[in-house]
This record gives sequence, structure tokens and C-alpha cells, in this order.
Amino acid sequence: MNAPGLGLADVLEAAARIRPFAHRTPLLTSASFDARVGARVWFKCEGFQRVGAFKFRGATNAVRALGDAEAARGVLTHSSGNHAQALALAARQRGIPCWVVMPRDAPAVKRAAVEGYGATVVPCEPTLAAREATARAVGAETGAVFIHPYDDPRVVAGQGTAALELLEDAPEPLDVLVVPVGGGGLASGTCLVAHGLRPELVVLGAEPAGADDARRSLAAGRRLAQEDPRTVADGLRTELSDLTFSILRAHLAEVVAVPDAETLGAMRWLTQRLKILIEPSSAVAVAALEARREAVAGRRVGVILSGANVDLSLLAG
Amino acid sequence: MNAPGLGLADVLEAAARIRPFAHRTPLLTSASFDARVGARVWFKCEGFQRVGAFKFRGATNAVRALGDAEAARGVLTHSSGNHAQALALAARQRGIPCWVVMPRDAPAVKRAAVEGYGATVVPCEPTLAAREATARAVGAETGAVFIHPYDDPRVVAGQGTAALELLEDAPEPLDVLVVPVGGGGLASGTCLVAHGLRPELVVLGAEPAGADDARRSLAAGRRLAQEDPRTVADGLRTELSDLTFSILRAHLAEVVAVPDAETLGAMRWLTQRLKILIEPSSAVAVAALEARREAVAGRRVGVILSGANVDLSLLAG
Repeated sequence: MNAPGLGLADVLEAAARIRPFAHRTPLLTSASFDARVGARVWFKCEGFQRVGAFKFRGATNAVRALGDAEAARGVLTHSSGNHAQALALAARQRGIPCWVVMPRDAPAVKRAAVEGYGATVVPCEPTLAAREATARAVGAETGAVFIHPYDDPRVVAGQGTAALELLEDAPEPLDVLVVPVGGGGLASGTCLVAHGLRPELVVLGAEPAGADDARRSLAAGRRLAQEDPRTVADGLRTELSDLTFSILRAHLAEVVAVPDAETLGAMRWLTQRLKILIEPSSAVAVAALEARREAVAGRRVGVILSGANVDLSLLAG
Repeated sequence: MNAPGLGLADVLEAAARIRPFAHRTPLLTSASFDARVGARVWFKCEGFQRVGAFKFRGATNAVRALGDAEAARGVLTHSSGNHAQALALAARQRGIPCWVVMPRDAPAVKRAAVEGYGATVVPCEPTLAAREATARAVGAETGAVFIHPYDDPRVVAGQGTAALELLEDAPEPLDVLVVPVGGGGLASGTCLVAHGLRPELVVLGAEPAGADDARRSLAAGRRLAQEDPRTVADGLRTELSDLTFSILRAHLAEVVAVPDAETLGAMRWLTQRLKILIEPSSAVAVAALEARREAVAGRRVGVILSGANVDLSLLAG
């Protein structure tokens, strides 16, 4: 049902591979959140991961899985988000070059962040076609290995290490995991871990109502596109790939779609309780859990707070 | 030079006493902040302490130091800040009553927080005279023990445990500690630890320019009042007591006064790097360190981030 051969063993291998480079992020709890949802909840705080998001796990696994000759040519991606920074840092740590294709209209701060990690930004027109054509051209010229943000088994296996640590560090066996779904890399890695370690574990996906291609795709039984995504959760505007769709279809119990207003409310409420920054893409998982509070009553729940790269103006409400 | 007998031994005793009840808060580092100030800095994150601030240490030490008969009558304070919540929680944990005298015009959210920890709020007119008279009346009626927010050796010793943990947990011996100064409880406890453990350690106090009674008092050699404090750092509007002034005069290297604009700038900058909430009273210490970057160049510095109870609207800038 998965990509050929992709499973828990790949996540365990990724965990060993990235251990010297990635942080083991902490779990936090909130008695007031537990009271709010009537469950016992452990939050896996990936905002304390390098570059402020889980993306560093998958990027590092991909970069470190390359053979020396292949790696020496460098790596390449197209992204203006956390994956770009994650790949840039992972490449710098290995001492290899990195190219990032980024739309000309990407925020200057994102370009600066990637360049700050030593990568070369290659601007392109702000269309998917231009992005892919530019990436192909850079790849042909440099020989760099293309590392997709989520449509890559090495990336999926790396993202799964967050759930692995969550299950290892939670003081009790968990009944439910809640994870945000964008391109599906983190959710797929989480599914591989849950299926391999505790098949009875219920994995809930969380999506913005304005970018709910995973919910629609699972309902339709085939992968549907995400046209014109509209959500404040900028990390979740992408659509599934065939790889991530196949894994989610096999293992995900449900995808809960939540309106942005609930996401922002959950983000502000939990930020003040946990005292940490929580980006909207993470708060979607919190809001989804709140929406399913009857189903999780009395259960032990793990929530992956995927990152902390939030525009502070969103916190003011 | 200190209050009779008050010293490191009291802090060590407090550490043992509060250990079952208080969190050992984490240290965080930021490579980009280190580069910004040219020093190596460890942040002691008291925002993760119970009630979101170091105040729980002193309140717990005071409550737990009481004999059973004395404790049974309960405890009492006047405060609308973190100390009130801290004392309420410490009392509830010991199973004794707690009264908090609070001005009628205190924000409803602060009253609700104290009541949420099971304490009884006694409203009074918003003047110092009314506050003290009401507290005396409640004490006379109930027999409750008054626990001042900082003018109390048990509270000072308890606050010192934050610096003790910081020195124990930092991977290298520190050269400098930076601590905010309001009433001086945290700064005094920090001085006791520094003097007792490493007399060569330089302790810098940090104050808002709009509430700089400690800086003026140390310069004058006598305790001066703080009239009309004006600062966004609401935890630092109070003035020193004779107790805290005597300790700071003996041990503090300098008090650095910083304008609110620098405090808010430091708060927003560091919040985005550390990914945690930092209240303005804590950011004052960060801004003070930035103001003394030439003096601390190349040194190993500990900064006590005293709490995380920040109005999120302040983060937006």
C-alpha cells in the first residue's frame, strides 16, 4: 500500500542518520488545554527544531543519504518556505552547495534567510511552470540532486522521526496522533511510524478548510488538485503527491478541515498557555483536535506542533 | 552587609524545599543572538515556570517554610501581578487558604487568574494606603501570614534558585549574569548565589529608564523612591525595599537603565529567534546586555528571562 518498501524501518534509519544534526525537540503539556478538550495531550514542539520547523528532519535525511560523489554536486529545490531553509542548512552542514529556485516576488526576508545559510537563490517567474523549468535548468547545468519538499521517500522518512520521538518520549502509550497535512510529508512519515509501531493508534490529519485537497482526495479515493488555496496557514497550501496520497489513504483515520478563524483562535489561546510561538500551520492541528473533542474524550493524544515561524502581527488578533 | 544571616545557604535550602513543586526551567541559546552581542549567552527561561514566571519560586519557598500551625491560618498578600498568582498556587498546593488584596480597577483577567488558583480576592481602593490598610485588616481577621512580593528573606532566597540552576546547568562557568530589577527580589537572590558560589561573577541589573530607582539609589548610596513609574515593563514598576537595596548595594556591579523602545525591540527580535514568549520585564535584561555589548565581548553570559506573561498585542510592534 505504501511506496515500494517505505515503512518504519526507513524512519528508524533516518532517526539514526539525523541524530547528530537535528534537535530532539521537547514535549510540553498544558493542564488548561487538557481541561478544555477533556483529554490528556502531549505537544511535540518542532518549533525548537533547527530552522524553526520539522522540515529540517527530512532535508537532513535526504542530504545525508546521498553518496559522497552524488552529494559533491550539491542539492537543489524549489520552495520559498521552511524546506528551502532546511535544505540550505543541511547542505551547509555537509559542506556541499545548494540552489533554491524561488519566485521573484517571494518576500525578501525568505530570500535572505536561505542566503544566510549559504545557499544560492535562483529567481524565477512566479508560476509553477517557470519554477519547474528553472529547477530543471539548474539541475542540468550543475548536476545537483533535486530534493522535493515532500514527494521524496527520504524526506517522508525523515519527517517521520518527529512522531517516533513523540511516541518514545510520551510517558504513557498514546491513543491518537494529530498532525497537519499540507503536501503530506509529515503526515505520511507519522503514518509509517504509527502503522509500524502501534497499528491501533488513530492518526488524524488536520487541514485548513480553504486548502482541503487531502480531505477531498481521501473521500474521492483518488488524488485531487488544490486550486486557489485560501488560508492563513501558508505551510499547508500545497497539495498531496502520489506518494503521500498513497500512504495517507492506507493509514489516516480522517482528515479534519478547520476554518482559519478557529485556527487563529487556537493559536492565540495555546501560545499564551504554552508560552511558545506556534505557527498557523501547527495551530490547524490544535483546532482540529478541539473540533473532535467528543471523539478524543478521555484519550491520550499527541499533537505535532510542526513549526514556530509565525508573523508576530498574527498573534495580536 | 546582607540581611542578618541571609546568604547562599538560604538559597540552597530553598532549592531543596521547592524542588518537588517548581519546574527546573530550561536553558536556551541562540547563535544569532551570540553573533549580535559578540558573547556566548545562555537564557534561563522562567516563562516555563509555573504561573509563567520566577515568582512561583519565592512564593513556594515562603509557603513551605511555614510551620504547620502557622500555615493552617493561610497566607495573604497585596499584588495584582505574578506574585499573586504564584502565592495562590503555592497555597493551593499546600492545601491552605490564600487572600489577595487587589485594587478594584485591576484587570478582570488578573482577578480571574488568582481566583482560578483558588484564592480569595479582596478588592480595595487603588491607593497604596488602602492596599496596606486592607491587608492589615484581612490579616487581623484571619490570622493569615503576610507574604510580601519581595521584601521577605524567604522570597528572596526562593528567587535565588533560578540563578543557582542557571549556574549549575550552563555547560561552562559563566562570567556575567544579567537580571531585571523591579522590587529587587530576583536580583537579590541572584546576588546571594553569585557571591556565595563565584565571587568574581559580575552581576548586572537591568531597569527600565522610566522606573530606574535602583540605578539612582545605588548612585546615591541610599534608597530612593520610585515616583510615577513609566514603562511598558509592568513587573518592574516597583521600588526596592531596605532588604533588597542592602543586598544589591553590596553585590551588584551596575544597574543599566534602558528605554522602552529598546526593550520592545529586543523582545520582538529575541522572541522570533528563541520561539518563546518573553515578557517586557524580561526583555529589559536583554536590552541591557545589548547596551553593554562592548563590556561583555567574548564573555560567557547568563540572562534570566524572568517570565512570559506578555500581552500578545505588544508583539506586533
